[in-house]
Amino acid sequence: MTVRLFVSATLTAGQAVTLDPRQAHYVASVMRLAPGDSIHLFNGRDGEWRTEIAMLTKKSVRLSVVDRVRAQKGPTDLWLAFTPPKGPRLATLIEKATELGVAVLAPIITARSIVRRTNTERLAAIAAEAAEQCGRLTVPAVREAVSLDDLIADWPTDRRLIFCDESRTAPTLTQAIADVPPPVAVLIGPEGGFAAAERERLRAMPAVIAATLGPRILRVDTAAIAALAVYQATAGDWRR
Amino acid sequence: MTVRLFVSATLTAGQAVTLDPRQAHYVASVMRLAPGDSIHLFNGRDGEWRTEIAMLTKKSVRLSVVDRVRAQKGPTDLWLAFTPPKGPRLATLIEKATELGVAVLAPIITARSIVRRTNTERLAAIAAEAAEQCGRLTVPAVREAVSLDDLIADWPTDRRLIFCDESRTAPTLTQAIADVPPPVAVLIGPEGGFAAAERERLRAMPAVIAATLGPRILRVDTAAIAALAVYQATAGDWRR
Repeated sequence: MTVRLFVSATLTAGQAVTLDPRQAHYVASVMRLAPGDSIHLFNGRDGEWRTEIAMLTKKSVRLSVVDRVRAQKGPTDLWLAFTPPKGPRLATLIEKATELGVAVLAPIITARSIVRRTNTERLAAIAAEAAEQCGRLTVPAVREAVSLDDLIADWPTDRRLIFCDESRTAPTLTQAIADVPPPVAVLIGPEGGFAAAERERLRAMPAVIAATLGPRILRVDTAAIAALAVYQATAGDWRR
Repeated sequence: MTVRLFVSATLTAGQAVTLDPRQAHYVASVMRLAPGDSIHLFNGRDGEWRTEIAMLTKKSVRLSVVDRVRAQKGPTDLWLAFTPPKGPRLATLIEKATELGVAVLAPIITARSIVRRTNTERLAAIAAEAAEQCGRLTVPAVREAVSLDDLIADWPTDRRLIFCDESRTAPTLTQAIADVPPPVAVLIGPEGGFAAAERERLRAMPAVIAATLGPRILRVDTAAIAALAVYQATAGDWRR
């Protein structure tokens, strides 16, 4: 398997790129690559490029960009707005949402939220590593956490919001998706659900379409992963 | 939220049930319930029953079974055969597959497997906790790990096996599911994929239908969760 790394540098033939310390450690000490070995780089703008290791020590790796192997392509225009779960489930959610092709990760704070602030830099690093591993040409944008009220106030009118609702009176997810033209966002509430007043505000938004995710109570990360997978498989980039 | 616990005891009105130490700790010290409080029990056979705490110390809880609140219902007849991933991803996979309604969890060992033995008791405990939390009336059966050859040799002829294939030449997952009558199993290979000889043996099985899971490389746990969600949403018990 070719090592793929996300970098911020511009990529063009002949360019020299120095890896950051985490990536240098991975290349030199974990993968034990040597000068002359190939590594692929992407930056979310210039496509994917084959490079060769020009210089390598345990702490520093310099690459020489050789040629482009894939043209740049945007991600599916799919957003995820979610109430961050506690502990390792948050990292699971970020990693899986990245693998499932999400473009924007928007943490929100709700009445029943337990996690009320997020470390954006850490979440972006998890997303970058997942993007490197899964073959994406982009890394999802991780937003700062905002209140549900602010999310609603600033909501773009042309983007439908699939509100994953626990009430079980809403249409099923596949019915909801079939009725919704892109672009869309998936909205996942906290463990214990949205408060009654929040549910009313959401249901009053013209952009909102409610959907139920089956007969069982899903954890936040499960609900997010499942809803994104169903979206990509039935309306997104899993189709041919 | 009502505390739900999985027990092995028969459930019938008037019965006394003593919780195991893990559950007693959870009830007495984590949830801090008191004598007279309600707890729901299920055993996978007798439906879900409301009980009341008759006696409680920090280490021991005895319940009195009151009345049945839900009749027994089987799970969707959906199996997952999977190559166990390393570390915490295995627990993630078991938990999420349980939330997504799987009836049987069958770990397999393949040429490129890293994890070659599993702790069945530990995996069953993770599945039981997830079943308690998500509202299921059953706990998935966790099989002992077997080689892919043994899985193929013993495969029930009437159960189709959805082989999640990385080749990208197979039909999409939704196309594959649409062509397959129940009962089915989902098959997920190791990181790095099945070996060429394994792929040939699988493709020669009459029960197998291959499917691709989109354009990105998914980790084992992501692939399993995503495939199960898509199955339940499009052909399983998420439909009305």
